[in-house]
Amino acid sequence: MIKAGIVGGAGYAGVELLRILAGHPEVELTAVTSHAETGLKVSDMFPSLRRRVALRFVPLEDDAFTRCDVVFFATPNGIAMQQAARLLAAGARVVDLAADFRIRDIAEWEKWYGMAHVAPELVAEAVYGLPEVHRGQIRAARVLANPGCYPTAVQLGFLPLLEAGIVEHGHLIADAKSGVSGAGRRAEMSSLFSEAGDNFKAYGVAGHRHLPEIRQGLSRMAGGAEIGLVFVPHLTPLIRGIHATLYARLARDIDAKALQDLFESRFSGEAFVDVLPAGSHPETRSVRASNMCRIAVHRPQGGDTVVVLSVIDNLVKGAAGQAVQNMNIMFGKEETLGVDMIPVSP
Amino acid sequence: MIKAGIVGGAGYAGVELLRILAGHPEVELTAVTSHAETGLKVSDMFPSLRRRVALRFVPLEDDAFTRCDVVFFATPNGIAMQQAARLLAAGARVVDLAADFRIRDIAEWEKWYGMAHVAPELVAEAVYGLPEVHRGQIRAARVLANPGCYPTAVQLGFLPLLEAGIVEHGHLIADAKSGVSGAGRRAEMSSLFSEAGDNFKAYGVAGHRHLPEIRQGLSRMAGGAEIGLVFVPHLTPLIRGIHATLYARLARDIDAKALQDLFESRFSGEAFVDVLPAGSHPETRSVRASNMCRIAVHRPQGGDTVVVLSVIDNLVKGAAGQAVQNMNIMFGKEETLGVDMIPVSP
Amino acid sequence: MIKAGIVGGAGYAGVELLRILAGHPEVELTAVTSHAETGLKVSDMFPSLRRRVALRFVPLEDDAFTRCDVVFFATPNGIAMQQAARLLAAGARVVDLAADFRIRDIAEWEKWYGMAHVAPELVAEAVYGLPEVHRGQIRAARVLANPGCYPTAVQLGFLPLLEAGIVEHGHLIADAKSGVSGAGRRAEMSSLFSEAGDNFKAYGVAGHRHLPEIRQGLSRMAGGAEIGLVFVPHLTPLIRGIHATLYARLARDIDAKALQDLFESRFSGEAFVDVLPAGSHPETRSVRASNMCRIAVHRPQGGDTVVVLSVIDNLVKGAAGQAVQNMNIMFGKEETLGVDMIPVSP
Amino acid sequence: MIKAGIVGGAGYAGVELLRILAGHPEVELTAVTSHAETGLKVSDMFPSLRRRVALRFVPLEDDAFTRCDVVFFATPNGIAMQQAARLLAAGARVVDLAADFRIRDIAEWEKWYGMAHVAPELVAEAVYGLPEVHRGQIRAARVLANPGCYPTAVQLGFLPLLEAGIVEHGHLIADAKSGVSGAGRRAEMSSLFSEAGDNFKAYGVAGHRHLPEIRQGLSRMAGGAEIGLVFVPHLTPLIRGIHATLYARLARDIDAKALQDLFESRFSGEAFVDVLPAGSHPETRSVRASNMCRIAVHRPQGGDTVVVLSVIDNLVKGAAGQAVQNMNIMFGKEETLGVDMIPVSP
Repeated sequence: MIKAGIVGGAGYAGVELLRILAGHPEVELTAVTSHAETGLKVSDMFPSLRRRVALRFVPLEDDAFTRCDVVFFATPNGIAMQQAARLLAAGARVVDLAADFRIRDIAEWEKWYGMAHVAPELVAEAVYGLPEVHRGQIRAARVLANPGCYPTAVQLGFLPLLEAGIVEHGHLIADAKSGVSGAGRRAEMSSLFSEAGDNFKAYGVAGHRHLPEIRQGLSRMAGGAEIGLVFVPHLTPLIRGIHATLYARLARDIDAKALQDLFESRFSGEAFVDVLPAGSHPETRSVRASNMCRIAVHRPQGGDTVVVLSVIDNLVKGAAGQAVQNMNIMFGKEETLGVDMIPVSP
Repeated sequence: MIKAGIVGGAGYAGVELLRILAGHPEVELTAVTSHAETGLKVSDMFPSLRRRVALRFVPLEDDAFTRCDVVFFATPNGIAMQQAARLLAAGARVVDLAADFRIRDIAEWEKWYGMAHVAPELVAEAVYGLPEVHRGQIRAARVLANPGCYPTAVQLGFLPLLEAGIVEHGHLIADAKSGVSGAGRRAEMSSLFSEAGDNFKAYGVAGHRHLPEIRQGLSRMAGGAEIGLVFVPHLTPLIRGIHATLYARLARDIDAKALQDLFESRFSGEAFVDVLPAGSHPETRSVRASNMCRIAVHRPQGGDTVVVLSVIDNLVKGAAGQAVQNMNIMFGKEETLGVDMIPVSP
Repeated sequence: MIKAGIVGGAGYAGVELLRILAGHPEVELTAVTSHAETGLKVSDMFPSLRRRVALRFVPLEDDAFTRCDVVFFATPNGIAMQQAARLLAAGARVVDLAADFRIRDIAEWEKWYGMAHVAPELVAEAVYGLPEVHRGQIRAARVLANPGCYPTAVQLGFLPLLEAGIVEHGHLIADAKSGVSGAGRRAEMSSLFSEAGDNFKAYGVAGHRHLPEIRQGLSRMAGGAEIGLVFVPHLTPLIRGIHATLYARLARDIDAKALQDLFESRFSGEAFVDVLPAGSHPETRSVRASNMCRIAVHRPQGGDTVVVLSVIDNLVKGAAGQAVQNMNIMFGKEETLGVDMIPVSP
Repeated sequence: MIKAGIVGGAGYAGVELLRILAGHPEVELTAVTSHAETGLKVSDMFPSLRRRVALRFVPLEDDAFTRCDVVFFATPNGIAMQQAARLLAAGARVVDLAADFRIRDIAEWEKWYGMAHVAPELVAEAVYGLPEVHRGQIRAARVLANPGCYPTAVQLGFLPLLEAGIVEHGHLIADAKSGVSGAGRRAEMSSLFSEAGDNFKAYGVAGHRHLPEIRQGLSRMAGGAEIGLVFVPHLTPLIRGIHATLYARLARDIDAKALQDLFESRFSGEAFVDVLPAGSHPETRSVRASNMCRIAVHRPQGGDTVVVLSVIDNLVKGAAGQAVQNMNIMFGKEETLGVDMIPVSP
């Protein structure tokens, strides 16, 4: 059994980790913190976990964490970078669901996240946890940077096009729509039911923190080429789900069948990326509460623009599920173990 | 492995059965019908089941059904009563998620359902599948009448009060609220997003088909006493979930602690009924996509009216999940096998 | 032109007042406060009011308030009682949308609202602003206590039954469901889209602040008789809307037609109460964004329990609209002036 | 008073026309048809219109239509082209909310709409009713082609860029999101609450009927230049609202201030187009139930791609409201008369 701890178990990524790990056949949930709720039973805060999680929230200083094989950080940005070294020293491996270890360029990170980085050496060591790209390195990772939700949906969608080198690098567009849980379990006016409900809006058009993360990932796929990307995130009245609509201009001609084949062959063998038949439109509910990413590729009216549609559940493949998938890889388990939930639909 | 067939796999109860059975470790999905979709791949209709269900819809006449150990009917009312005998003769056991075998009084059934019953002898044989009441008989059932969604939530909530004989039988009130999936996967105007969304209404106040079913069940619990029940169903903009608010007048005094104990002890040992601590308000999302029923009991202002709050997921404990729970009992399996999903929240 | 001021213009009742008053042909919006937003343009906070409201938020001390003919308080409880005397002295009339002047029994008010009342003499003077009951006194009111949202829906529904004396006073039940805007524009966890969305729950079963207000009103209708009321509020995923399902036991027989006539004649001539034909089920969307209350009365299965269904928009007839209706009465205007918006449906 | 008739009053555009016209001070609602509901009182179908609309549905053959000054068609495509001539002959002017007169190229229309056009001469005569572009011609129009919902949001957003000639014509992208009412009041599976709720998807990526309409309009703005447009519509769980996110590549440099000025000056004086301050993100709810279009223009990271955000209520500015705005122009009324509703928010 893998002894797992969670730092920040009271947020949405945290409670989703609890749901998944509580049902994982080879994990023993060992310790959970919540900054504000020490002492409270986890299931008093989340009645959905009654009879399934018996733990109480403890402080991060609790001894239980020193016995963990893996510690997940589902905390705000800037926490994991302070705590990781101590846990690594105690023998645990660290999976950070926040952004502390995602951006290799420390100055860039500090610009977007507005704080000084206190553990640049761990950034250098950290492995970016997109299994479909970095599976090999993930196996050996001590510090794993779990990708952001938008970056997961967007990178998986562009991946075959960039690796194959068939689209222009300079004019990519990612028009992405996220459910409200992406804003976290925080009492903010803009996330109220009466504000976010029955409403649709863009936000962060001038610049969103996931932009440098996506650009970094796309650049790697493109062999280091500089990427020109316009990224427009939107808020849509879903609880869970991301739909990324991606636009790229073809650098050379490719017929519809070859385009479809490119996607199918790139993701052949991937347990959690499902390329839909040509002409399909994936729905967010087709991946709800599951770790699946579903993708369709189109070339409307045979023009020179490729349109990729990519959907994930932002809390699963976009956060907790992918974190457990990474944990499975890191500990030599079957990659789908405990994270192969069938989507809930309707 | 239990070979299972589903008649009516294209409705909401049907697809939920598919989700549950596809993940059940001791079930082999053998055949699925859809009246309108014969030949189509199940996963073409329900992309959430891609890679999990390989079957195509077949007609009910398909040979595969004759090999089934159990056949679930997730059909409109009036289908199972026509087909059950043939399947029983072939050696299958039958679980009907519709109403054909629920009401023992054939004339009453015919009045509410507006058709002649063609298999009254099977009604006589059928077992009503509320495990918390009829577990013993369910084990041996050949024909199982799976309870309706409202009846499940309402009966479980009233159960301890009626068995203990502490409330008046003549003036029970069940004010119940259901998500829209309760109306089925049918293209009806009143179930449109733009009609049922951002809207709340009562319906069927003059009389709803679940009324006689509930009354019959409550009467049994009350030792055969006649039951006076006002049942008001409402439609609320959820996809899944039923919340029953139940009112009963105390026939004799009972203090708050004894009332709480009554509920806790009645459901002690039940895997799928969870009595919340005194003062709680169960939320439908705390049971979303799970087979759990959560219940709280109140006595507001110490008055003579007991208020019980009971929540279920109408598609799981109110339909497909309870059906699989019953199947487990019928086939001597662990009752929770394959149906112990942790609720999805948020 | 009536010069109108609003204290607390940044909450939901406040912005709805702004919407209605900005379109009112005989009102000049003169001053608006927001505790936290002094100096900000109202339409910068609420873009829906761009080009319609040119004011900036000012402090309550602003001179503009001394020029007002009427000042609306859309503040938290406990503000109006501190400020009303000063405004009255300056010649304004006061309409309080909070609870400060609703409960005549000061001790009762202090128990439920958890603070000392600082203006009991204004409570004595205040008129309870349910026009269908107190129209005569409203005309002359200097201090008007605008009813709560639940109290409006519940009182209008029980009104004909209690005035006619045909139901038992001791066992009334009000099972009420409210949209989330009823909780106010406050950044609270329980009102988040990801908490309140796709979820249904009861709350405050042990005792809700609207209970004494409703009891006081019902008692008046019943000629001062003591009222036994169980009131169970619920939260439903609507932005706007209240649906009250009311249960009363008949004290003497009355046939269905007479019951319907009783309701129709009681509300005959009322511009904002619409009694639906027998057998109807009013929907909250049929009153969305309007000042209408729609009511239907049922006697299920001819039993001894009357069921009344009553719907309002909690922000309009349950708050801002009724406040403007009251203002119209107080200032001798046509009662429907500026508040006869047609409901928005779908 | 303008005598107005509505053909197809039982759909969403129809009932919105009823709401607007019933409140219009210079319109007399004269006749309303519904294919399926002849004889029914309009307010029995739409209780929101009780006390406001006294008409019953009549057949189109009813004499009342011959007395109309204007007849609105809120019908499926293909009806208005059959009926318009007869009404014109009787002296009425015709406003078609469907697509029959929108596309000047008959062959193109027939390809996208799958039927033969029976009134090409009326297409030649018809005026395209986007007042911000064609106000002059609208005044004299006998046959008015009311724009589609997506085309309104998309054209208004691109308008200043194309007229000014500062973006490339060949690579425009319109990523548009619509509420579910856009699919009409039709009992279709894909519009069910349990299908479209809590779900987000693209559709029609291969080609949507609004594509040729948008291309035609954009081409006119660009002085007849050929337009390359990728148009991807999406379904989002709103009842009302369209959000268009538009991408265009700059053909020459323009600084941020000049870009903002371009939009502000182009729409200066327009009652129903509101250009938000630089840096804004318009929300669909800021135009809910109103005839307003709100627009913001961005140039993310100072790159060469301009992003325009444009929101409307699809049933108002995208259908019934714009139709009434056009009627006002056609009949020499104040353009905002009866259609200046303040948006409903929250």
